[in-house]
Amino acid sequence: VILTVTANPALDVTYDVDRLVPHASHRVRRVREVAGGKGLNVSSVLTQHGIPTIATGMVGGGAGALLRADLAARGVAHDFGELAHETRRTVTVVGLADGDATAFNEPGAPWTPAEAEAFLRQVSGLLRREGPAVLVVSGSVPPGFPPDGYAQLTSLGHDVGCQVVVDASGGPLLGSLSAHPDVVKPNRDELRSVTGLQDAVAGAKALQDMGARHVVVSLGADGMVLLRPDGSVMRAAPGEALRGNPTGAGDAGVAAVAAGLAREAEWAPILVDAVAWSAAAVLQPVAGSVDLADIDRLRTGVRLAPPER
Amino acid sequence: VILTVTANPALDVTYDVDRLVPHASHRVRRVREVAGGKGLNVSSVLTQHGIPTIATGMVGGGAGALLRADLAARGVAHDFGELAHETRRTVTVVGLADGDATAFNEPGAPWTPAEAEAFLRQVSGLLRREGPAVLVVSGSVPPGFPPDGYAQLTSLGHDVGCQVVVDASGGPLLGSLSAHPDVVKPNRDELRSVTGLQDAVAGAKALQDMGARHVVVSLGADGMVLLRPDGSVMRAAPGEALRGNPTGAGDAGVAAVAAGLAREAEWAPILVDAVAWSAAAVLQPVAGSVDLADIDRLRTGVRLAPPER
Repeated sequence: VILTVTANPALDVTYDVDRLVPHASHRVRRVREVAGGKGLNVSSVLTQHGIPTIATGMVGGGAGALLRADLAARGVAHDFGELAHETRRTVTVVGLADGDATAFNEPGAPWTPAEAEAFLRQVSGLLRREGPAVLVVSGSVPPGFPPDGYAQLTSLGHDVGCQVVVDASGGPLLGSLSAHPDVVKPNRDELRSVTGLQDAVAGAKALQDMGARHVVVSLGADGMVLLRPDGSVMRAAPGEALRGNPTGAGDAGVAAVAAGLAREAEWAPILVDAVAWSAAAVLQPVAGSVDLADIDRLRTGVRLAPPER
Repeated sequence: VILTVTANPALDVTYDVDRLVPHASHRVRRVREVAGGKGLNVSSVLTQHGIPTIATGMVGGGAGALLRADLAARGVAHDFGELAHETRRTVTVVGLADGDATAFNEPGAPWTPAEAEAFLRQVSGLLRREGPAVLVVSGSVPPGFPPDGYAQLTSLGHDVGCQVVVDASGGPLLGSLSAHPDVVKPNRDELRSVTGLQDAVAGAKALQDMGARHVVVSLGADGMVLLRPDGSVMRAAPGEALRGNPTGAGDAGVAAVAAGLAREAEWAPILVDAVAWSAAAVLQPVAGSVDLADIDRLRTGVRLAPPER
């Protein structure tokens, strides 16, 4: 089983309005509420492939109940700890006239030390009970989250023989490296932001120097580049330029990486899958979703470059 | 005690953002969540005056819990029935750069027939238990609310010897009239909308012809006009032009009317109070709030015209 951890999930709320007019009052025509969070997207994509997964983290209140209900409706197995406060919301206002979206992201209430402890206990309990092959730690962290929280999760995973994938940015990414995650997957901007380096391989090397084992950098339409612990570099790129919704494409790529690690695959097919799953996610209007037929078609087009040193 | 009924309350959420930019993604700097609804505002103003009141209606989920908690924090007594679904939210986005507000109002989930029955049982139970002098029925109704719901509430109030004040618009206002509410309080626009008449007294007469006893029309800065069952007309206007936030001014006026009916006052001082309390509410940045010192000062300035026929 693949255990995904989303430290900072949200209830993603969409308001359809006729047209967004600043400083006016709007009647919301339709409200949609879905579970949001990078680890949840990873579990959702794995579920679509029939790969066993459990999503965890902490949720609370009415928003937490709606988040759980949405995952249940989509058949995504989950086991969350309970926060004392409401799960944060994001509100995206969509103008029906033009389809344009305007987003408002709540920061969420700060975690208390007790909530941070309960979170680590929750993950630790699932690691021991489920014995997952892979632990995926995804996304941003709430206010009050321990600075070394992602390093602690990585160590908890290693303690039970899990491979650990961290998909984060900024402080949480950097904070995880001392515990030597097996894979980190920044995108180009995230890598530049934490290393100051423009070049993906140079940036990946910098993360390795700080403790990461494998570094997979997602390059959007240019595919992905992998830096392995032996210093070799592997690149894969999609065979066609795709237009669509890039939100969740990285999460689909992480799902492919986790699935590959779980079945002990070689890195060449893992990287091909990661590029194909990401590309398939771009074709979907919502994050956390892929069409398996798209993946089959896209996989045959992925161009895998010979390894470099 | 004055029982206020809010059929369609909301959790009023305010998002502070740096500046609203359509089609962009915004980090919400601060989230504020307060209980919203016209009857709740009436109870809040009465509570500030030390006048016994209970707010009722139906709430549900995490938003319902936050709504109750906000009323409790403000010392507003309440006794709500429980909805199976989340209470609706309104989201107001305030740009910190310019202070301008953009509002998004959720419609709320439709009530089931069982929820409508539970609502009537809730109000009926409180009427019998508390024996209020006045029942105030305020605001819009949720989807699925019975068309004759406000008439049923009015009859329930009359059955236990209550005077009934209805502050509503459109269908719910019209629907209440067959049960002969003691007071209805449309504003000028609401009156025009349901009667098609521009003149306040003519419009008030039309509502009387449909069943209302007293009609109080709020005229904004021009004060209020009362049409009594005997056909006499009384007008009161504030002594000074006030600038501020008109939201909730009508609710403060209704609070004054209910308080006057409860103490069996004459209509002349009731109308003076209604104008003064409304004006005081304009001076407050949030609905449901007045400053008692403002009321004392404003009351002395109210100009009461001699009764007309």
